[in-house]
Amino acid sequence: MEINPIGFVRNSAEEKTDWETLISELVILPEYEEGLYRIEEMPEILVIFYFDRAEEIKMRVHPKHDHSIPKVGVFASRSPTRPNFLGITKVRLLERRANILVVKGLDALNGTPIIDIKPAVRWDQLDKSEK
Amino acid sequence: MEINPIGFVRNSAEEKTDWETLISELVILPEYEEGLYRIEEMPEILVIFYFDRAEEIKMRVHPKHDHSIPKVGVFASRSPTRPNFLGITKVRLLERRANILVVKGLDALNGTPIIDIKPAVRWDQLDKSEK
Repeated sequence: MEINPIGFVRNSAEEKTDWETLISELVILPEYEEGLYRIEEMPEILVIFYFDRAEEIKMRVHPKHDHSIPKVGVFASRSPTRPNFLGITKVRLLERRANILVVKGLDALNGTPIIDIKPAVRWDQLDKSEK
Repeated sequence: MEINPIGFVRNSAEEKTDWETLISELVILPEYEEGLYRIEEMPEILVIFYFDRAEEIKMRVHPKHDHSIPKVGVFASRSPTRPNFLGITKVRLLERRANILVVKGLDALNGTPIIDIKPAVRWDQLDKSEK
């Protein structure tokens, strides 16, 4: 099955960094800008991205590369070393500028292909006061 | 970018149903069974699957097919009518039997390809009493 980028990550991370405070821009391809309609009302979104610098698949890993935590299966971890190189992170949506979403907390390197974006909460559960 | 199934959904849903109460089996390919190691300690998991019966892409949709809710962009919805046909659902993990995970609440039809599985909570935040 073929998947294609809907956009790319733009940030200052060329290697592992303090992801929680990192601000990133999600630059969405112009042909998909209409798909962002009203997303700015969402306080949090899920970003699905492709680990384009992942190279190997391991069936057992230490969670968070922390060797003090015993190994678990890769599907019980968020490690990039998985059969399909997909990452999913819930991020704070700070601002939308046309086809660009400004987010906080994305753990993806500069240039990472974005595969999909989904709301983190349901519309009927959205607390408007949050935004 | 190419993605491949790690397994398939087995359940009674040949069409839309009451997903919240539906029990499904995630039948993982034998070569990936080791990647499930210790996943049974997780009370909830994320299932990433492929909408293999989706046919069209729409940039604006009514959330949950509910016409009483005004249209939003597809990336502000969970609709299958998206550029990459990926669905993500958090489900309750009831049981693991070797390469089979028994889950509750998956909104995917019988035979749906499974692309990935991830923990819904971090290992260091796992409340062992939940399971």
